[in-house]
Amino acid sequence: MAVAAVAKTERNESGIARVLEQLGERFGDRLQTGQSLREQHGHTTTYIPNQAPDGVFFPESVEEVQEAVRVCAEHRVPVIPFGVGSSLEGHVNAPAGGICLDMSRMNRVLAVNQEDLDCTVEPGITREELNHYLRDTGLFFPIDPGANASLGGMAATRASGTNAVRYGTMRENVLSVTAVMPDGRAVTTARRARKSSAGYDLTRLLVGSEGTLGVISALTLRLYGIPQAISGGVCPFPSVEAACQAVITTIQMGIPVARMELVNALGMQAINRYSKLDYPESPCLFLEFHGTDAGVAEQAELFGEIAGEFSGGPFNWAREAEERQKLWKARHDFYWAGFTLRPGTKALATDVCVPISRLAECIVETEADIAETGLIAPIVGHVGDGNFHVTVLMDMEDKEEITRAEGFVSRLNRRALAMEGTCTGEHGIGQGKMRYLEEEHGAEGVDVMRAIKKALDPLNIMNPGKIIGIEGE
Amino acid sequence: MAVAAVAKTERNESGIARVLEQLGERFGDRLQTGQSLREQHGHTTTYIPNQAPDGVFFPESVEEVQEAVRVCAEHRVPVIPFGVGSSLEGHVNAPAGGICLDMSRMNRVLAVNQEDLDCTVEPGITREELNHYLRDTGLFFPIDPGANASLGGMAATRASGTNAVRYGTMRENVLSVTAVMPDGRAVTTARRARKSSAGYDLTRLLVGSEGTLGVISALTLRLYGIPQAISGGVCPFPSVEAACQAVITTIQMGIPVARMELVNALGMQAINRYSKLDYPESPCLFLEFHGTDAGVAEQAELFGEIAGEFSGGPFNWAREAEERQKLWKARHDFYWAGFTLRPGTKALATDVCVPISRLAECIVETEADIAETGLIAPIVGHVGDGNFHVTVLMDMEDKEEITRAEGFVSRLNRRALAMEGTCTGEHGIGQGKMRYLEEEHGAEGVDVMRAIKKALDPLNIMNPGKIIGIEGE
Repeated sequence: MAVAAVAKTERNESGIARVLEQLGERFGDRLQTGQSLREQHGHTTTYIPNQAPDGVFFPESVEEVQEAVRVCAEHRVPVIPFGVGSSLEGHVNAPAGGICLDMSRMNRVLAVNQEDLDCTVEPGITREELNHYLRDTGLFFPIDPGANASLGGMAATRASGTNAVRYGTMRENVLSVTAVMPDGRAVTTARRARKSSAGYDLTRLLVGSEGTLGVISALTLRLYGIPQAISGGVCPFPSVEAACQAVITTIQMGIPVARMELVNALGMQAINRYSKLDYPESPCLFLEFHGTDAGVAEQAELFGEIAGEFSGGPFNWAREAEERQKLWKARHDFYWAGFTLRPGTKALATDVCVPISRLAECIVETEADIAETGLIAPIVGHVGDGNFHVTVLMDMEDKEEITRAEGFVSRLNRRALAMEGTCTGEHGIGQGKMRYLEEEHGAEGVDVMRAIKKALDPLNIMNPGKIIGIEGE
Repeated sequence: MAVAAVAKTERNESGIARVLEQLGERFGDRLQTGQSLREQHGHTTTYIPNQAPDGVFFPESVEEVQEAVRVCAEHRVPVIPFGVGSSLEGHVNAPAGGICLDMSRMNRVLAVNQEDLDCTVEPGITREELNHYLRDTGLFFPIDPGANASLGGMAATRASGTNAVRYGTMRENVLSVTAVMPDGRAVTTARRARKSSAGYDLTRLLVGSEGTLGVISALTLRLYGIPQAISGGVCPFPSVEAACQAVITTIQMGIPVARMELVNALGMQAINRYSKLDYPESPCLFLEFHGTDAGVAEQAELFGEIAGEFSGGPFNWAREAEERQKLWKARHDFYWAGFTLRPGTKALATDVCVPISRLAECIVETEADIAETGLIAPIVGHVGDGNFHVTVLMDMEDKEEITRAEGFVSRLNRRALAMEGTCTGEHGIGQGKMRYLEEEHGAEGVDVMRAIKKALDPLNIMNPGKIIGIEGE
């Protein structure tokens, strides 16, 4: 395949200057170039160094996204889409400079089709804003990464969260996207029908493409009725292994649990400290059941039997909605809670996901590895999916510790791969995990991805330097 | 983009002769060239004319598929994968000749991971064979197109069936595929983890690609526990509209019905006649509920209330497993039952899918159109998904009738598109629906598909002349 047209990720200074000039003339102060704002739009949430874009443009419509992409394409300048900047793998960094498209002004709900249980939104709306908007309809959107992320960013990284075990991930819950492609044309990938066999699945190709194939500029999402009954709470276990065995049994029995999250003992300490709670500081499962009154009672009873088998309990029920909100807020704030264990550090997030039969083994080996390596690193996990996060808290002044931590992460990722798992269940590849992509997919798989990237973005202007390396990067 | 390398779908006689010679030398009588066998491997299940391949090869391993694809690539000869030949849109026709890969000898179960609720199979195994194999594990695979199709073919066409409303389609239930790509390399698209954000979603790209990007040579599938309790039966309604309103209400209330199928009055006549049953010959819903004893009872009660609101009933319960099997066998045999209404005809299958809020309107308008057009065309539908099939029974000697039927189908597809639906919910595009692809996806969407096709299959050897036209076709 010809690669001559593929731009390298070296900075194209003259192109960048002309793009800044043209966008500035056209959009005035909706193009911002101040250093502090640019740095806020580079990578900020983990230890990966910040690489700021040269300008930040705030589009207000699909047409404006198209216009900006066309100007960037003309001058071969990178385009980096930006939601709220909560991604964890350097997705919004600008290694070769370029223009950040901050989608925050495109945050409207364009349509809610209550009868069809779907809605169409602009990409800048956050998950909390969407659910707030929906509150009077009796419907909700279940996907909930820890951060109050934007829906566009969640689609771009194929995000999931605590509800995925029952409701699926962004993969299952995005019905369609409108994406501005690298040549500036807008493609709407599907109609609102629940299923379709009409050609290649462009929706699923764009979901998880991390801005490297196009700019997601609108999305149609599946919604769900708010369950008649919800119950849940926290159940302690004597060991991580016992908790994992309870999870495996619950999944295998087909109990349609809505949420099933593991927090290890160190993680419980962090949560109690940050969220001012007093849960047991042993490994705990956070659970939630959705259904009818009778259904929820039945699920809770079945789970109680399973927990008992593995010496879990007593179950702390969160009976009131307010109490449940507090519980899940504490869980969602876990990333921030971690820092109470070691203030002043930076976090290296990990995201392996393994077949559920290997989960207990993977977590137990990982806890031993953390202890041997001498790291402070609490664990939480969307264990119903086999996905867990180790948050390694690092002193950024201590180079030796960073090297040790990186060695640990490398072993963790390879452990998951050896167990037929993935290095990333929901965060994406970004810059941080590029080195694992070929180990996971083989050279053949990465070559197929690269061929698609080159075919759709021959100038390599769409979020270059993420997911896969193109010659010259 | 350069298109010089893209082969036309004219017959490449010298290449075909050399491929037949090489494969014959290498594989002996596993390459067959007899006319009758070749014609059985061209399109046989609808009125689209048969276009037989030049040879039929029966591979027995991924490596043999690779070998055959490499020989075909060397001589630029088409490769047409074949499961059981039950697809409905000419997918297995060979418009430019070439080699059919009949996957029927690759029908082994390679692994069942009971704890992880998944299995890995070769593509030639059929859905009934797989469920027969699984019968002692307590697990099952739910996707059930009418035919006893092969899993490879089901993945290639993104098939679904009666259980999709609860369990999803092949899109949601294929965890990974191993595909032999046009250059002969084998790609395994994902690990066994339940979710992953590691790069482009090649699994979903290959599912539904109809053999035009690669030959699916192994698949990992999600399995489900056989529900503790199953109940179901048939519920008549005074009109199609009343039945559809009951469906819409059921979906909106979030009742987790497993199967919800509509058969119109003419369809019920066909089913009664073909399967020797005596259901009411008015519009009926076929239903099934899965869950715990209490859950199933609750679902059935809730549905009963909804049906009553729309003057449905009385419900004919199929209480015994054997009775239920008979009921669903009758439903699956619908394609064949249609011919009892007009023996000696051929069927033109349709497959629109619309947002559920438009379903009643779409079916009512379609029934009126059938009556005005003077066609014999029963209707069945996976109405929980908004998907329904009109089976137009045509006298192939009557050119005027064929023209009338084609006009009807064209209006039906456009009606669905105008209602934000799709021309194909589960059958695929093949040859039969190529003309609707651009109406559905726009020139922009089809151009993106074509760019992917050209990037991955620059010689256009993979099932050419299906889904999208490449220059020269």
